[in-house]
Amino acid sequence: MSWTLAARAEKMNPSVIREILKVTEKPGIISFAGGLPSPKTFPVAEFRAACEKVLTEDGPAALQYAASEGYGPLREMVAAGLPWKVDPAQVLITTGSQQGLDLVAKILLDSGSRMLVETPTYLGALQAFAPMEPRAVSVASDDEGVRADDLAAKAGQGAERARFAYLLPNFQNPTGRTMSEERRAAVVAAAANAGVPLLEDNPYGDLWFEQPPPAPLTARNPEGCLYLGSFSKVLAPGLRLGFLVAPPAIYPKLLQAKQAADLHSPSFNQRMVAQVMQDGFLARHVPTIRALYKSQRDHMLRALEREMPDGVQWSRPVGGMFLWVRLPAGLDAVTLLPRAVERNVAFVPGAAFYADVPESNTMRLSFVTASTSQIDIGIAALAQTIREAMETQRTGRPATPVQL
Amino acid sequence: MSWTLAARAEKMNPSVIREILKVTEKPGIISFAGGLPSPKTFPVAEFRAACEKVLTEDGPAALQYAASEGYGPLREMVAAGLPWKVDPAQVLITTGSQQGLDLVAKILLDSGSRMLVETPTYLGALQAFAPMEPRAVSVASDDEGVRADDLAAKAGQGAERARFAYLLPNFQNPTGRTMSEERRAAVVAAAANAGVPLLEDNPYGDLWFEQPPPAPLTARNPEGCLYLGSFSKVLAPGLRLGFLVAPPAIYPKLLQAKQAADLHSPSFNQRMVAQVMQDGFLARHVPTIRALYKSQRDHMLRALEREMPDGVQWSRPVGGMFLWVRLPAGLDAVTLLPRAVERNVAFVPGAAFYADVPESNTMRLSFVTASTSQIDIGIAALAQTIREAMETQRTGRPATPVQL
Repeated sequence: MSWTLAARAEKMNPSVIREILKVTEKPGIISFAGGLPSPKTFPVAEFRAACEKVLTEDGPAALQYAASEGYGPLREMVAAGLPWKVDPAQVLITTGSQQGLDLVAKILLDSGSRMLVETPTYLGALQAFAPMEPRAVSVASDDEGVRADDLAAKAGQGAERARFAYLLPNFQNPTGRTMSEERRAAVVAAAANAGVPLLEDNPYGDLWFEQPPPAPLTARNPEGCLYLGSFSKVLAPGLRLGFLVAPPAIYPKLLQAKQAADLHSPSFNQRMVAQVMQDGFLARHVPTIRALYKSQRDHMLRALEREMPDGVQWSRPVGGMFLWVRLPAGLDAVTLLPRAVERNVAFVPGAAFYADVPESNTMRLSFVTASTSQIDIGIAALAQTIREAMETQRTGRPATPVQL
Repeated sequence: MSWTLAARAEKMNPSVIREILKVTEKPGIISFAGGLPSPKTFPVAEFRAACEKVLTEDGPAALQYAASEGYGPLREMVAAGLPWKVDPAQVLITTGSQQGLDLVAKILLDSGSRMLVETPTYLGALQAFAPMEPRAVSVASDDEGVRADDLAAKAGQGAERARFAYLLPNFQNPTGRTMSEERRAAVVAAAANAGVPLLEDNPYGDLWFEQPPPAPLTARNPEGCLYLGSFSKVLAPGLRLGFLVAPPAIYPKLLQAKQAADLHSPSFNQRMVAQVMQDGFLARHVPTIRALYKSQRDHMLRALEREMPDGVQWSRPVGGMFLWVRLPAGLDAVTLLPRAVERNVAFVPGAAFYADVPESNTMRLSFVTASTSQIDIGIAALAQTIREAMETQRTGRPATPVQL
């Protein structure tokens, strides 16, 4: 039998992150690689009560086919919880916010379409867009996020105009950086001026440590933005629920793409989440996640300061799950990874997160999954791996192994 | 803000079925339209026990991100339950079998690719394929399913060779027909000879009334077929779980498309279903669904025989959920629908199920959702609507309304 693959499938490659997650599932590995929320934060008792209630009171509907838009009460809760005026009719419940990326790609990207991303950007988004075969263009970015002047310069015109710019303003995956108030205003103005819609991805926005981040980009120009949210980081990722907020001009097309993709997201899960969220549960629950992740961040920052050799730099995120490490020039995090895994510690090489030219001396570390004692051990092991590589680079030969 | 849609989105139209489902959600409507399993068949108590057990014993894992392939024990159960040798590594758990259609389209269809479907075929499949912009070609079909000679004639060659043929051999949606043993053998041979892979969709195969259907197409040529299964009809659709079985040559591409689409199907739902399926639950549960649906089918057949005017024909499916009605030539089921809805009865016009030239004098009726007394009332109302239309056709003027 001769299978003929679609051109897009010929280009598909295994997800680096997913393959790494497999390696790091080996027992004994301390993983800073996966973007896994701490299971300590999952409200298991509340889910148990919600399951019982939903199945007892609303079982047949919870287990039946349902409307593609999503469960009405959940859409209303989502709309009411956003910091700008959103009609529940603009909310589309998705099978994780990852599916939102797939749906947006389907309705806005032709093969060869120009679209803009941050430098670096979320790998999963690049993978979600890839099947539509766009031309992803990296916009220069700094510690405050994507640069408005470069976004304007790369917006393109006419048929070459970017279909959208994909931005993750809060505690970005992978860098942990947050877009400043001034930058948000400038970016929204530049995009509107250039006629480029924004696709704002905000899975981590609620996970701030000292103060809430500035208002979302979408709040500043709702007609020119699509907004992606997720229940994965504030409740649990295993339910696979997220949402998309779209202006009325675009919503019907997204809905049709959603119908074609999986008919609707699980009715049961939507009712469970709506049940758990009743009576302001998130307002009580999310602060406990913030406190935990802040202490984890603090612990990892202290470990990095204690262990890392001179020349290694890292970000100090004010929320979220990730920080970004920059190794001395010339070191390659991809070649470092197997040596780190030998020492039972894992990370994601930063090169995975670039749409075009990667900076190979970078890596992403999650500070939320490992315990504090694992962070101490893992960062020490990682620092030793890096020192060894620096020594090899300096002398041209492998360093004498140093016992941990 | 000027949004530029992808070409595929310009062509997207609202799903006829989904829009009809909305109309028929009006209270008081007797709906033969939706493909909704009877909620009486949902094992609510078993799901409640499974939720409790999964959350108590395995809560953190059930609520965490997971591998894109699916939950290992569930993949093993799926493989073990199929009537040919399947390695669990060939099983991909999907977010409903609808997602399987989306994934297959992504990896096998380029814009303009030729692909083959039955006449008529499942509307949701046409919608799932549409975003990849294939050229769907209808293969002539009769009461035994798609015709092998016409499949061979339309297979195409070289770059024009069909990327796959989409077939639903058991109790087909929409016609209810079942492919005979001889036809299966002939179709598999013709497809293999022409080098056309088969995409076999089997959501209803377990719902047989007198005897199991012949062996799946895939069992006859596993390397040349993709197989889609679903938990929606034997457990509950609201969990959105299905599966894809693929030969090793194709599996990795489907897996990558799956990762990009929604990372993985809900871990929690997969564990719930695996828990419910333990200890042979389906072997006890599915016979109760068969018995219910058989009695519903019998009831609808009796009502049709009692009520329908001469010239109306219908299929007598030996399993599944649907039967197919053919009106006298010249009658149009689409124009009939609003008049039926006025009489509080709904169906899906058959025209929705054709890839190219529709037969407008057809309709699909589900016999599983309505109660037997609703079937009596609804079929009588539908028959009256049809009689009225026949009278109008005969005399050229509207019939005198007949009181029910």
